[in-house]
Amino acid sequence: MFKEKFSEGIITAKQFDREDIEYILKKGNEMMKIKNSNLLHGKILATLFFEPSTRTRLSFESAMYRLGGNVIGFHSGDVSSIKKGETIADTIRTVENYSDCIVMRHSLEGAARMASKFTKIPIINAGSGSGEHPTQALLDLLTITEEIGPLDGLNIGIMGDLKYGRTVHSLSILLSNFDVNIYFISPESLRMRNRDIDFLQQHKIQYKEITNYRKILNILDVLYMTRIQKERFVDIEEYEKLKNFYIFREDDLDDTKDNFKLLHPLPRVLEISPEVDASKKAIYFKQTFYGIPMRKAILAELMTD
Amino acid sequence: MFKEKFSEGIITAKQFDREDIEYILKKGNEMMKIKNSNLLHGKILATLFFEPSTRTRLSFESAMYRLGGNVIGFHSGDVSSIKKGETIADTIRTVENYSDCIVMRHSLEGAARMASKFTKIPIINAGSGSGEHPTQALLDLLTITEEIGPLDGLNIGIMGDLKYGRTVHSLSILLSNFDVNIYFISPESLRMRNRDIDFLQQHKIQYKEITNYRKILNILDVLYMTRIQKERFVDIEEYEKLKNFYIFREDDLDDTKDNFKLLHPLPRVLEISPEVDASKKAIYFKQTFYGIPMRKAILAELMTD
Amino acid sequence: MFKEKFSEGIITAKQFDREDIEYILKKGNEMMKIKNSNLLHGKILATLFFEPSTRTRLSFESAMYRLGGNVIGFHSGDVSSIKKGETIADTIRTVENYSDCIVMRHSLEGAARMASKFTKIPIINAGSGSGEHPTQALLDLLTITEEIGPLDGLNIGIMGDLKYGRTVHSLSILLSNFDVNIYFISPESLRMRNRDIDFLQQHKIQYKEITNYRKILNILDVLYMTRIQKERFVDIEEYEKLKNFYIFREDDLDDTKDNFKLLHPLPRVLEISPEVDASKKAIYFKQTFYGIPMRKAILAELMTD
Repeated sequence: MFKEKFSEGIITAKQFDREDIEYILKKGNEMMKIKNSNLLHGKILATLFFEPSTRTRLSFESAMYRLGGNVIGFHSGDVSSIKKGETIADTIRTVENYSDCIVMRHSLEGAARMASKFTKIPIINAGSGSGEHPTQALLDLLTITEEIGPLDGLNIGIMGDLKYGRTVHSLSILLSNFDVNIYFISPESLRMRNRDIDFLQQHKIQYKEITNYRKILNILDVLYMTRIQKERFVDIEEYEKLKNFYIFREDDLDDTKDNFKLLHPLPRVLEISPEVDASKKAIYFKQTFYGIPMRKAILAELMTD
Repeated sequence: MFKEKFSEGIITAKQFDREDIEYILKKGNEMMKIKNSNLLHGKILATLFFEPSTRTRLSFESAMYRLGGNVIGFHSGDVSSIKKGETIADTIRTVENYSDCIVMRHSLEGAARMASKFTKIPIINAGSGSGEHPTQALLDLLTITEEIGPLDGLNIGIMGDLKYGRTVHSLSILLSNFDVNIYFISPESLRMRNRDIDFLQQHKIQYKEITNYRKILNILDVLYMTRIQKERFVDIEEYEKLKNFYIFREDDLDDTKDNFKLLHPLPRVLEISPEVDASKKAIYFKQTFYGIPMRKAILAELMTD
Repeated sequence: MFKEKFSEGIITAKQFDREDIEYILKKGNEMMKIKNSNLLHGKILATLFFEPSTRTRLSFESAMYRLGGNVIGFHSGDVSSIKKGETIADTIRTVENYSDCIVMRHSLEGAARMASKFTKIPIINAGSGSGEHPTQALLDLLTITEEIGPLDGLNIGIMGDLKYGRTVHSLSILLSNFDVNIYFISPESLRMRNRDIDFLQQHKIQYKEITNYRKILNILDVLYMTRIQKERFVDIEEYEKLKNFYIFREDDLDDTKDNFKLLHPLPRVLEISPEVDASKKAIYFKQTFYGIPMRKAILAELMTD
């Protein structure tokens, strides 16, 4: 059923209703109990990273190997055929003949959706410009449910670059299926975009937009921080002004609930001080751990015959 | 027998006589019926791409995995040891200790042949400058025989950059073993080189050199188009003059036979209009599909104990 | 026992005592008899090459596949998360969740040691700046013992860039566990660093520092040559002066013992003339062969449950 609904692949968090999310979280949980299997023996995953990545690519590749499959791909858009002027559509129509599923990252919003129109094999969007990164948001939810518990009733802060942050967009869309209170915390110029806010309002999600996280730190169950992404700024001076806008420090932890958890999709630069890492409230490295079972679950659902 | 004859690997299309071609086409056809096998379990293929590639590299890697083997390699000549001044000979004498077969692409003609002199394991030439690309030509023939039928008697147009196009060189050499009529279609400055023409004349192949493809479109069974390759031009103005010399458009299809097929080794840039893609006469994406069984056949022949 | 002692991985040659070296040489010898196995089936090796490499990376990857395992990784520091400002510590704490062992190369001395402090999985130092390259030194010893015999009593020349040469540092440290005579042969400005000399003196190794190798060529059992490494020089004029300081030529072989062997970690540039390659005294390509069994032994020891 999941496989039929997602036969085009995973392009946007908007494909998921509450039932789909709960299903894939359950599958992610089950994958935590099996380190290795042969479920995808003989299958090939293509990882097409037009925009480079370490974490997401290595995580998908590790997940694929843990399931007994193989991987082909490229690590940057600086590859032969792209340089020679080939379109995404042509690349996809070629690679579909070499693989059973394509994971792709591209600097353009909409690239994954466009790709899915040109192939019969599933496309997984591993980040499309400032748009979305749905599998990151799924692993974020697995992290929260495994480390805290059910999502309903949680107070969740999402802080940093809400304008360009693709993980933030996908995460807030997924959360709109649950009864959560969201606090969007950002500098004025990096607020959530209107279209994202519109979507959340249509889904009647409870949210507030604020600038000073210290005011609400004591009521949060989860604070999801993001990096101010240098590479998304056209004006480097604007970046310099904003890069240290938020720095979460050890003494911030004092104001938090006992069960408070700090998440971050990583990489982190300066926005979380290293001394925070030692706290059991800081679970951003555990979060990378949950990436493997979640991606195993996704790959298994999309590729098992 | 094939294995003994090709113990040095596949360096040039000139190694193949008609019997060899028919044998490997039969093996390619057989490989289409078996998606996965364990024939090359425990074997390692090295893919050394001094000049980058997506299609050819991913295709060989996929073929190797479908046969149960593994792959090591690099994707660009911008690698450590080359930068440090290592010769091809030294790289090959090293990598032969790590692998069972080497697929290599290099910007210099003759690189693959030279490499084969320094190792006991087979070398597969995956493109050597403007010279040759024999496995592409073999998959082109598999495409034609599977989609149209026997080669003898066919009228085949080969169009575009015939001077620098390595796939064209290998393809016309292979075709010289059959009773075909070839039309070499190119701008004056990109005609087939004398040495290639000499070879074809020695082999008594029927050919004509023309400039206007429209004149003979109605008699062709196959038109094999190629890209004007920007990267082969020293003079960029010369490239700009020639890049749009041929553009195959939808209405060109009206002049073709019912069984006419349009091939292209890809990537394509502007030389085939996208609206042609929808025609069942356009089989350049199917052509990439045939790359897998042909490369499986080649790898299996060269590496099976 | 080896596994317990080396639970942090292999960071420096200084971790090894004579017993450890003899143990791993024995294991390396045993691995020569088994081309393929399934010992590490289901295990994943991460190869993190912040500084690029061909030989070392491909050698580890080949060894891992020969043992039935899989590999993820990156080939240059020009990767997404590093560019985005991520620290080594964060990269390691992420990748440990994706793999069972990490092989890393980095331009900074001490990088591997630092990395090992942030993870529970073993780190293998595959080259840290001008510091060390312990697994290269282990394969060098396997080459010597397999091709000549026991180390005790040998006269070993080590020639070239002794200041920046990381393989030289690791090799001389390992040799300090044996009763050998070392001749350090270098231009004045590329002599062994004081700290390395101090270590050897503490270990009471017999050594001499000389400039003219011809004076002692006739007593050597082994001459280990290294490349003058352009990339380590800040002053390119200084490099130009030194790059041809030593060139080992065919007639040098006339002065050597019958059992003399010439080694080189490769890549070689001009320091050994190509006509030397044909001599059975030149075993630098065989040396790359010994890299596979030695790295198989290392990976098997560190990763077998």
